[in-house]
Amino acid sequence: MPSSFHPPVRTLMGPGPSDVNPRILEALSRPTIGHLDPEFIRLMDEIKALLQYAFKTNNELTLPVSAPGSAGMEAVFVNLLERGDKAIVCQNGAFGGRMKENVERCGATPVMVMDEWGTAVDLDKVEQALKSNPDAKMLAFVHAETSTGVLSDAQRLAALGHQYGVLVVVDAVTSLGGVPLEVDAWGIDAIYSGSQKCLSCIPGLSPVSFSSRAVEVIRSRTSKVQSWFLDMNLIMDYWGGSTRRSYHHTAPINPLYGLHEALVCLQEEGLPQVWQRHAMQHKAFAAGIEAMGLKLIVDPLSRLPQLNAVGVPEGFDEAVVRATLLSQYDLEIGAGLGSLAGKIWRVGLMGYGASQKNVLVCLGALESVLVEQGLSLDRGAAVQAANEIYRGA
Amino acid sequence: MPSSFHPPVRTLMGPGPSDVNPRILEALSRPTIGHLDPEFIRLMDEIKALLQYAFKTNNELTLPVSAPGSAGMEAVFVNLLERGDKAIVCQNGAFGGRMKENVERCGATPVMVMDEWGTAVDLDKVEQALKSNPDAKMLAFVHAETSTGVLSDAQRLAALGHQYGVLVVVDAVTSLGGVPLEVDAWGIDAIYSGSQKCLSCIPGLSPVSFSSRAVEVIRSRTSKVQSWFLDMNLIMDYWGGSTRRSYHHTAPINPLYGLHEALVCLQEEGLPQVWQRHAMQHKAFAAGIEAMGLKLIVDPLSRLPQLNAVGVPEGFDEAVVRATLLSQYDLEIGAGLGSLAGKIWRVGLMGYGASQKNVLVCLGALESVLVEQGLSLDRGAAVQAANEIYRGA
Repeated sequence: MPSSFHPPVRTLMGPGPSDVNPRILEALSRPTIGHLDPEFIRLMDEIKALLQYAFKTNNELTLPVSAPGSAGMEAVFVNLLERGDKAIVCQNGAFGGRMKENVERCGATPVMVMDEWGTAVDLDKVEQALKSNPDAKMLAFVHAETSTGVLSDAQRLAALGHQYGVLVVVDAVTSLGGVPLEVDAWGIDAIYSGSQKCLSCIPGLSPVSFSSRAVEVIRSRTSKVQSWFLDMNLIMDYWGGSTRRSYHHTAPINPLYGLHEALVCLQEEGLPQVWQRHAMQHKAFAAGIEAMGLKLIVDPLSRLPQLNAVGVPEGFDEAVVRATLLSQYDLEIGAGLGSLAGKIWRVGLMGYGASQKNVLVCLGALESVLVEQGLSLDRGAAVQAANEIYRGA
Repeated sequence: MPSSFHPPVRTLMGPGPSDVNPRILEALSRPTIGHLDPEFIRLMDEIKALLQYAFKTNNELTLPVSAPGSAGMEAVFVNLLERGDKAIVCQNGAFGGRMKENVERCGATPVMVMDEWGTAVDLDKVEQALKSNPDAKMLAFVHAETSTGVLSDAQRLAALGHQYGVLVVVDAVTSLGGVPLEVDAWGIDAIYSGSQKCLSCIPGLSPVSFSSRAVEVIRSRTSKVQSWFLDMNLIMDYWGGSTRRSYHHTAPINPLYGLHEALVCLQEEGLPQVWQRHAMQHKAFAAGIEAMGLKLIVDPLSRLPQLNAVGVPEGFDEAVVRATLLSQYDLEIGAGLGSLAGKIWRVGLMGYGASQKNVLVCLGALESVLVEQGLSLDRGAAVQAANEIYRGA
């Protein structure tokens, strides 16, 4: 007969969920109120304003989907696409593949622009695809590929999309709150993210935002959105600005307390400061990794500060190292996926976890475990290299 | 600039969310761990076993969908239906109408069996529909209609469905943990519920269960499930019993701590005791309501103990009464929906909120507000009538 569950206290440095700010954990346990309570309506309005700040947008249709990032992705595709539509989808990792799945399940046709795992989306290939497919409705790409640690140039990709008159759809699951992202200035039409990455909230919510152009597309559909739960025509009436909100589904009240608190933290620190902190912690971590003789596999120009793809040294079993880090140090780092399985570790420095403490814990633990497993390296060099960055910062 | 949100402390006696057990609120704030952590896998296994207990089923495919009850409903329909299928849908309130929406969005045809709001699903009409539609694939109905407070005879409806060889689909959003429900013994093929009703957990999760017959239907589909996020073929590999779990989406870790704790509470008390408590609190509440000269609009034979539809006395503005209860007593009760809007209040006695404390608070507050608004009644009679039931219990 199962009894209460008491989780171990881990340091979360995988691809997400990332370490959750204790302020957010505390917020989760505040008393539940009703989803039509006037105080809850006020909370919704604040969350909307805070998300507009985080996305740098004035989009009216900006809200958290009541489900994880995968549902946010699906919300974007099922609302914007209809049967017979064509969508250009860039794939340079796992999540571009998931976009393709979504396009197909909408009865639309994906035109794939493929890049190698670990590299950024190639602008020339995208332009070629846009040229060859004048009937495409959408260009979709992943801003920060969680599976590889690669940043693509969302600003230039969005500009290309607009040049060719398509809707620009961006996966910002791992980018929001970690690297510069400007929905309005870059002209992004639809974007989705996740709560459990650089926002440092718990998993389970997916912030989304749609431009007025995207809303127009949704409003003028000829067929109903295939998902009732994700139909923005209905959700707009619940999250919309009007005084009379019509009930759609029961919002996940307490997780929204957490998201609100996470966004308050983000705003208190300020976006430029948050981006700067991620960049700095990444620099210290990278210095440590290199001092250990390991390599970050992504080209420096397209490296994500918040997700570091560290090459597994020749002859080492990456799973044994991860399991040891978890059992001996309560430290979680991530494995590679797809073509990078077995070849990389994915080390997240996201949100609250983009901290000096986490960098030092990870470098210290990784060094110790690798030495234990027989890697010959200069003991203490990693932490020293990171500390030099901190002293210079 | 928004700051931390501190909700008022309400007594939640609407149609849900219901009062959350403090044990569950505390569980939510425990440290987040990764969704592939061995300890999290253990938690998933326990949640599955606890849900099997709650649903009274041995179904292997029993798990919480990572989104609210509306998504659980959608999960059942999109997995079981394909384009061109026919489904018999019973509608005796708001949620049968939502089922119809789901059937249509799957490209399937709903055959509606309509009953008046406030009455139970009529067995004869259902049998007639089954007879007239030998090509129907499914019979779907709501066990406990949250919009009206009506219980339908799920056992006999399920038996009818089996007699005619269709899949039996049950909406148990408000019934699970409130009234007797036996998935295996009654032969239910697919069922969904919500976390925020009689389980007294926060909103945002939807327990579902599929019989092996339903799983067979899902596995042998000729088309892909239109929702990637809700595709049980993929979710089975994540929640399944195998040692190697394949990543699908990031599970909402902390809300699952809450659901686990809620289910542990349910098991500690025991299902028969839980059902008995709901019946008893309803009896006390009903006695109080009648002593006040008010009426429960649902026939005693199909009344839900956990959701009481109280007729608004002639000449009273129901919204003013609700607003006064909220502002002066921090007490939330629900309004009527659809054809019952303005005519009823919906008073929930669900899960942790099915308590003597809540019954007395609600009767006392309602009496006082109604007297204030000019209703002539015997002061104190309501609480006295309820206490008589408690003394006799």
